[in-house]
Amino acid sequence: MINQLKELLSEEQVSINETILEQHSQDESYHDVAKPDVVVFPKTTEEVSRILQYANTHKIPVVPFGRGSSLEGHIIPYDNGITIDFSLMDKIIAIQPEDLLVVVQPGVTRTQLNQALKQHGLFFSVDPGADATLGGMVATNASGTTAVRYGVMRDQVRDLEVVLADGTVIHTGSLAAKSASGYHLNGLFTGSEGTLGCFTELTLRVYGIPEFETAARATFNTVEEAVEAVTSVLQVGIPIARVELVDEESIRQVNAHNETSFAEKPTLFLEFHGNEAGLAQDVAFTTELMQDAGCTEIIFETDTAARNQLWTARHNLAYSYIHSHKGKKMMVTDVCVPISELAHAIHHAREQLTKYQLAGGLLGHVGDGNFHALVMVDMKNTDEVARANALNEAIVEYALSKNGTCTGEHGVGVGKQKYQRKEHGAAYDVMASIKQTLDPNNIMNPGKIIKVDPV
Amino acid sequence: MINQLKELLSEEQVSINETILEQHSQDESYHDVAKPDVVVFPKTTEEVSRILQYANTHKIPVVPFGRGSSLEGHIIPYDNGITIDFSLMDKIIAIQPEDLLVVVQPGVTRTQLNQALKQHGLFFSVDPGADATLGGMVATNASGTTAVRYGVMRDQVRDLEVVLADGTVIHTGSLAAKSASGYHLNGLFTGSEGTLGCFTELTLRVYGIPEFETAARATFNTVEEAVEAVTSVLQVGIPIARVELVDEESIRQVNAHNETSFAEKPTLFLEFHGNEAGLAQDVAFTTELMQDAGCTEIIFETDTAARNQLWTARHNLAYSYIHSHKGKKMMVTDVCVPISELAHAIHHAREQLTKYQLAGGLLGHVGDGNFHALVMVDMKNTDEVARANALNEAIVEYALSKNGTCTGEHGVGVGKQKYQRKEHGAAYDVMASIKQTLDPNNIMNPGKIIKVDPV
Ligand SMILES: Cc1cc2nc3c(=O)[nH]c(=O)nc-3n(C[C@H](O)[C@H](O)[C@H](O)COP(=O)(O)OP(=O)(O)OC[C@H]3O[C@@H](n4cnc5c(N)ncnc54)[C@H](O)[C@@H]3O)c2cc1C
Ligand SMILES: Cc1cc2nc3c(=O)[nH]c(=O)nc-3n(C[C@H](O)[C@H](O)[C@H](O)COP(=O)(O)OP(=O)(O)OC[C@H]3O[C@@H](n4cnc5c(N)ncnc54)[C@H](O)[C@@H]3O)c2cc1C
Repeated sequence: MINQLKELLSEEQVSINETILEQHSQDESYHDVAKPDVVVFPKTTEEVSRILQYANTHKIPVVPFGRGSSLEGHIIPYDNGITIDFSLMDKIIAIQPEDLLVVVQPGVTRTQLNQALKQHGLFFSVDPGADATLGGMVATNASGTTAVRYGVMRDQVRDLEVVLADGTVIHTGSLAAKSASGYHLNGLFTGSEGTLGCFTELTLRVYGIPEFETAARATFNTVEEAVEAVTSVLQVGIPIARVELVDEESIRQVNAHNETSFAEKPTLFLEFHGNEAGLAQDVAFTTELMQDAGCTEIIFETDTAARNQLWTARHNLAYSYIHSHKGKKMMVTDVCVPISELAHAIHHAREQLTKYQLAGGLLGHVGDGNFHALVMVDMKNTDEVARANALNEAIVEYALSKNGTCTGEHGVGVGKQKYQRKEHGAAYDVMASIKQTLDPNNIMNPGKIIKVDPV
Repeated sequence: MINQLKELLSEEQVSINETILEQHSQDESYHDVAKPDVVVFPKTTEEVSRILQYANTHKIPVVPFGRGSSLEGHIIPYDNGITIDFSLMDKIIAIQPEDLLVVVQPGVTRTQLNQALKQHGLFFSVDPGADATLGGMVATNASGTTAVRYGVMRDQVRDLEVVLADGTVIHTGSLAAKSASGYHLNGLFTGSEGTLGCFTELTLRVYGIPEFETAARATFNTVEEAVEAVTSVLQVGIPIARVELVDEESIRQVNAHNETSFAEKPTLFLEFHGNEAGLAQDVAFTTELMQDAGCTEIIFETDTAARNQLWTARHNLAYSYIHSHKGKKMMVTDVCVPISELAHAIHHAREQLTKYQLAGGLLGHVGDGNFHALVMVDMKNTDEVARANALNEAIVEYALSKNGTCTGEHGVGVGKQKYQRKEHGAAYDVMASIKQTLDPNNIMNPGKIIKVDPV
């Protein structure tokens, strides 16, 4: 196999180096590791197509790999085989300011893209807490702090070049801003986690950098009050750009790892985008609503440095947990519930943390009803692992009972596979039949999202 | 068959009345007509499931029917069979202001829904020019004047209850505002034009009625200047709520059929939503940009009556063409191109109208790059029909050559079927394989979107 792959690509694009294999055996979460047989580094669509034709003919499992920052075992090759690492496909192909579009290769990271967009007065909106690749972000339908205003990854996808399991190259969309032509393949492939094909080129929507931005920190006595405040802001239609919940426990973590001394209370981090006058009015109205809901203090950060400090602290929160618990692994729940159920769901999650005697932070993108319980687990302590799993399960079951979802943004991977039938019911069979149709040999990231019974 | 259906439903829910059959033999366009064998009027999901089980077993074609306002022959039963009319499933099941969601049956129309939402301070954003059903609007991925701000139908769909070809009932989503769980069936079924299943319940997103609204009319000497003005407004990120192009010819039509005396020049109809202060600033900035692009006059309509007059005139424009050309049929092109190509595309369309000696209006949702050439055709005049078809073809070919789409909002039906392979290339085979998997007997609206070769 190694020699064949070297013939299809080139000597130095095929690796069985132990360190390389190890790097591709784990993500940033608590899932068991497993090594691929080989890692390949294609540079062109043509090469990806050749690899897949070969793998499909020989029924060899293939795992596409971006940065490996996903959290549910997405890129762990439990059936071994070939890992396709997209790090050499990292070119920004075109920036089209007039169309508010960019064309990029899948290995481009979000910070790399934003760096390039800045000089055009543009930005890319989706911002997960890791510096992920755009290919990986499309594949997991990632989102982040700005989804409440600008939408999730799927909302940004205008077209994908996809290499299917058999090597066929397709385009899932066009450059038109909207279309009613054919079935919606953009939507189907976004979030498919490498199980339906490899993305080799992405056409994505970008936005003009807003004229004005204001950030704020609002503290509350209880998480419930904070959530209530968010609900009322959304309901009156204030186009808030970001609204993040950071609970007491997580604020302590923030303060310990940043030069901040934020009040250690349930807190909302907020951001507003708009024109100067409109923003002033939004801010005034929001302040009123926050105070009505029991906000004890709201502090605005208008200068860029203070705003950056706030959002950097928020962005690095998960990493600060990881770095301050050396030897432990991160388990992070990711449910999303209807807003009307959010306060109850967060209350329930806090109860479960207590019940299972786990120290953990609650945080999340509360404007979308998406929140995380983040716990650091000692994987050698089987009792702790069992309690963490029970916590995750209890939180997922609760969300599903409220017609929510087991994963708001991290995706299914292997970690949420067992909830797929429960969440989707008979629709799961429809998904499985689509997988079967597009990847009859089940070579594309097998075992993720859909469990295909061995024939 | 009739007796069997009467047993599955009830006597009065099954009709072979000649007038009823005729009503279900045509849409509001120029396509050839064809009658179903029978029209059924289910009242429950259970009944729809029974009908499809029966039809699937006996391989009888089925066409779902909302209002019949679609424009590409979508609901014309060229293979006869059963038409399922959803007019008796017209209940609003739930309005959930806190979640900004509604649950409706598919036969509810958009005006019916907006009527009910008003008292909650909410509105449903998608507004095609006909009072379509929400089921039909999901099935065609309809959009309208507000898509530039609030998105298309697909962006509003949170969950669909779908009865598949074999009678299985699935749910395609959940109540969560975002999800990374499973494949994106919401997106796949939206826009599927009755070819993958029947929708029996829809959970849709709604919005708070904006605090302030302002409308304006901006006149230009040329269509190109008007389009240039739109491009610059979008690029600076002014969150314009509506921006419609109505050309000279269409303004004449507006004036002839409304109590208006708008200047007969290429015109933009604009609308802004927001808070009072922000809106004032948006309006001022937009005015400046319009004038820079050559706007000769911009008139603001702030009071509700004047605003309503403006938008009613715009909404009724297609119908005013229809009503003033008795005996003729409407053919309306529907391409969507990248914004940077829009001015050229509209110029090209005007040239084609001249070339083919057709009187027609150019109008459209220019903020999305979507525009229509609307011509009234005497179907008995074979030469005129041929010229109209040639016009449509030339406009589609041009759009595809610019990486646009053959249909921005009206959908494929039979009219745009012939462009599917050209537009989607190898992705068309992926679509066909999905159709084949979900509807192996090809009973669901056969011949629409995907052409399945007879076995
Ligand atoms: C500290 C931390 C914070 C995080 N915060 C967030 C957050 O706020 N929101 C959020 O959504 N996620 C978050 N994540 C998860 C992670 O960053 C996202 O899932 C991200 O999208 C993964 O991107 P990646 O490039 O690392 O992809 P990988 O992890 O390498 O791959 C992810 C999936 O995409 C597939 N894939 C990768 N490239 C391709 C391709 N070219 N074609 C087809 N399939 C491909 C893989 O097979 C795999 O299934 C966080 C992770 C960490 C470690
Ligand atoms: C004057 C005029 C102006 C228009 N302006 C616009 C516009 O601005 N934007 C726009 O997008 N469209 C526009 N249209 C087209 C039309 O209004 C839309 O396509 C609309 O979505 C059709 O809805 P309907 O209820 O009439 O559906 P129908 O025409 O009855 O059906 C449309 C399609 O949906 C399927 N369908 C219907 N109900 C269901 C169901 N319950 N389950 C599954 N499939 C179903 C049908 O099989 C068919 O394929 C206009 C039409 C006219 C006549």
